[in-house]
Amino acid sequence: MNVYSEASFKDALARLRSLRPLVHCLTNEVVQEITADVLLAAGASPAMVVAREEAGDFAAIAQALLVNTGTPYPERIEAMRDACRRAAAAGRPWVLDPVAAGLLPWRDGVIREFLALKPAVVRGNASEIRALARCGTGGKGVDSTDTSDAALEPAKALAREAGCVVFVTGEIDYVTDGLTTVSIPGGSAMTPLVVGTGCALSALTAAYLAAMPTALEAACAASAHAKRAAEYAALHAQGPGSFKAAYLDGLYLCA
Amino acid sequence: MNVYSEASFKDALARLRSLRPLVHCLTNEVVQEITADVLLAAGASPAMVVAREEAGDFAAIAQALLVNTGTPYPERIEAMRDACRRAAAAGRPWVLDPVAAGLLPWRDGVIREFLALKPAVVRGNASEIRALARCGTGGKGVDSTDTSDAALEPAKALAREAGCVVFVTGEIDYVTDGLTTVSIPGGSAMTPLVVGTGCALSALTAAYLAAMPTALEAACAASAHAKRAAEYAALHAQGPGSFKAAYLDGLYLCA
Amino acid sequence: MNVYSEASFKDALARLRSLRPLVHCLTNEVVQEITADVLLAAGASPAMVVAREEAGDFAAIAQALLVNTGTPYPERIEAMRDACRRAAAAGRPWVLDPVAAGLLPWRDGVIREFLALKPAVVRGNASEIRALARCGTGGKGVDSTDTSDAALEPAKALAREAGCVVFVTGEIDYVTDGLTTVSIPGGSAMTPLVVGTGCALSALTAAYLAAMPTALEAACAASAHAKRAAEYAALHAQGPGSFKAAYLDGLYLCA
Repeated sequence: MNVYSEASFKDALARLRSLRPLVHCLTNEVVQEITADVLLAAGASPAMVVAREEAGDFAAIAQALLVNTGTPYPERIEAMRDACRRAAAAGRPWVLDPVAAGLLPWRDGVIREFLALKPAVVRGNASEIRALARCGTGGKGVDSTDTSDAALEPAKALAREAGCVVFVTGEIDYVTDGLTTVSIPGGSAMTPLVVGTGCALSALTAAYLAAMPTALEAACAASAHAKRAAEYAALHAQGPGSFKAAYLDGLYLCA
Repeated sequence: MNVYSEASFKDALARLRSLRPLVHCLTNEVVQEITADVLLAAGASPAMVVAREEAGDFAAIAQALLVNTGTPYPERIEAMRDACRRAAAAGRPWVLDPVAAGLLPWRDGVIREFLALKPAVVRGNASEIRALARCGTGGKGVDSTDTSDAALEPAKALAREAGCVVFVTGEIDYVTDGLTTVSIPGGSAMTPLVVGTGCALSALTAAYLAAMPTALEAACAASAHAKRAAEYAALHAQGPGSFKAAYLDGLYLCA
Repeated sequence: MNVYSEASFKDALARLRSLRPLVHCLTNEVVQEITADVLLAAGASPAMVVAREEAGDFAAIAQALLVNTGTPYPERIEAMRDACRRAAAAGRPWVLDPVAAGLLPWRDGVIREFLALKPAVVRGNASEIRALARCGTGGKGVDSTDTSDAALEPAKALAREAGCVVFVTGEIDYVTDGLTTVSIPGGSAMTPLVVGTGCALSALTAAYLAAMPTALEAACAASAHAKRAAEYAALHAQGPGSFKAAYLDGLYLCA
C-alpha cells in the first residue's frame, strides 16, 4: 500500500489548472449545482448536456464524462448510454458513480449495464463498492454504513473483475487498479453532511482523467484535492452550511 | 392554544438524532439540494429515489416520505402515487407539501388527489392552507400573501376534514389536528428570502414523523428546530446568502 | 456608447423593490435554486411552473418570463413554447438565455425557434451572442471563449436582425437595441466561477422588464445590480464558495 505524495498532487493540480478540462456531467437531479460549482472552483469547466438528442454529440466534444446513477430514469439512461458509447469511440475517459448500489433491483441492473461499458474509474462509498463486489447489500439510502477499510479487499476484487480503477471514499480514501493500491488520508467528518460532495468528487475525478496519464493518478489527485479542501473547510466552518462554502473556497485556494 | 415547550423540543431533537431516519423525498426540481442539506444538517438521512421504476420499492424501505407538488409532471406524479401507496402499506407516515395550492387548476387536481391519500401532515404557507380549506385563491406564485393568523381557522377546518395534522408556517407557526392547536413563535423574516426553506421544513417534518409518537409532536418539533436555526442565522447573516449557510449551521448546532 | 448612470440604477432598483414582480422561470436543471435565490435576494418573486399542463396558464399570471436553453428536452421545450405564446398574448415580456449557442446542432435549432418568437431581451455571454449573430461557433461548453468587446458589433447586428435588445455579459457588459448601446463596467472576475450567475442574471433581467418602461433600461438595471453585488462579494470572499453567499447578500444589500 502506497500513500499518495504531496509532490504528486502538486504536479497533478498544475496539470488540471493548465488544461481546464471540459467535463460532461450526466449526474443526478439533486447535486447538479454543487457538482458544477466544485468543478469551477477546482479549475475545470463543467457542462450538463442531458438530452438524448445531444448528449452523445457532446460526449465527443468534452474531454471527460461523468455518469452518476443517483436519480436514473429511462430517458436519462438513454442519454447516458449514448454518451458512454460516443465517449469511448472518441477515446474520452469516463467515471461511473454507482449511487446506492445494492439497494434497489432496478437500479442495480442499470449500474451493472454501465459497469460493463468499461468506465476508467468507479468512484463510490464503501457500501456501494462492497455491493458491486457482491460483498454487501448496500447502505442506508445513499449513505454508507461501512468503513472504507471494510471495502478495501472488495475494491481490489472489483477492479480486477471490471478492469478499471476503483476509488472508494471514506475516512481514508483508497484507489486501486487491483494490483497497486494507494491510500489518501485526511479530510473532515463533516464532508458527508453536505449533499453532493461525493458525487462532485466523481466529477472532479473525471476532470483529472483528462489531465493525467493514468486513471490511478487521476483518482488519487481528485481524492487529495477534496481532502485538502475539506481540511481547509473544517478550519473555517461552524456547521455544514459554512463548511459547504468553505469547501468550495478550499478547492479554489489549493496550491 | 398551547405554546410548544423547550423541554418537548429537546426531547424530540434527541430522538431524531438517535434514530437518524432515512427520509424519502419526492420534491420539486428547484429545492432538492437544500432539502437534502437541511435533513443532513438537522440529523436525518435524505434520499431522492424518483423514478416510477423504483420509488414504490424505496418508500417501503425509507422511514418516512415527503411528497411536494412544486414542479409536478405526469411521470413524477406516478412515482409519487406509487410511493404513497407503498408507504401506507408499510405503515410509513408521509407529509404533503401542497406548493402553490389555489393558483392553477391542473395542479389543484393533483393536490386534491394526494390529500385524499391520507398524509399524516399537510405543511403549507398561509395562502396554500387557506386555498385547500376553500377560504382563499392562493398566493403570489409560490409565496404567501396571507398571514398565518388568517390561516388558523382554515387550518383547523382542513385538519378535521382531511383527518390529518395541518402545519401552517409564517411569522408564527401553527400546528393543529383540528382539536388541539399549538403555536410556535420565533424565527426570522429573512427565511422566506431563501428558496426551499419551507419545502425543506416539510422534509424535516417527515424526519420527525419517523422519530415521534404523534404527527402533532413531529410537526411542532420540526417547526421549533427550523425557528431556532433561523434565529441563529439571523444573528450571523448580512443577507440571504450568508443566512442560508448559517441556517444549515443552526440546524446542526441546535442542542 | 453611453455608460449607465448611478441615478438610473437607483431609480430602477426602487421600482423593482416596489413592484416585487412575479417571474416565471423556465430554466435549466442545474441552476434553478440559485436562480430563485437571486430573484428573492434582489427583490422579486420567482416561480418555476414547468409542466406542459400548466406552464402556459402560469405565463399569463406571472409578470415576466425567462426561457433558458441550458438543458432542453422535448417535454420542457413544449412547456416553453406554450409559455412564450401565452406570455405574448397577455402582453408579458420575456427573456431568452441561449445557453451554449453555436455548439450543438439540435440545441441551435431550439434556440433559433425561440429567437423567432420575439423575446424582449436576449442575454448571453460573448461566445453565445457571436454564434447567434453567425460570427462564431460557440464557446467551451457553456463558458465563453470570447471577450464581450469581441461580441459588441455582433450584438448590435443581432439586435437589429431579431428586433430585440441584446445583453452581452463579460468583463464589461453591453446592452444594445442596435441603435443605442450602453456599457456597464465593474463586477468581479470570480463571478463566472459560480455556476448560474449568468443564468440568474437573465432571470433578474426578466424581473426588471416587469418594472421598467423599456427593455434597454431593464437590461441595464439588471446588469448594474449584478455588477454591484459582485463587487460587494469580491470584498467579502476568500473563494467561489464564500463569493456565492456574499453575492446574494450583495444583491439584497444594494441600495
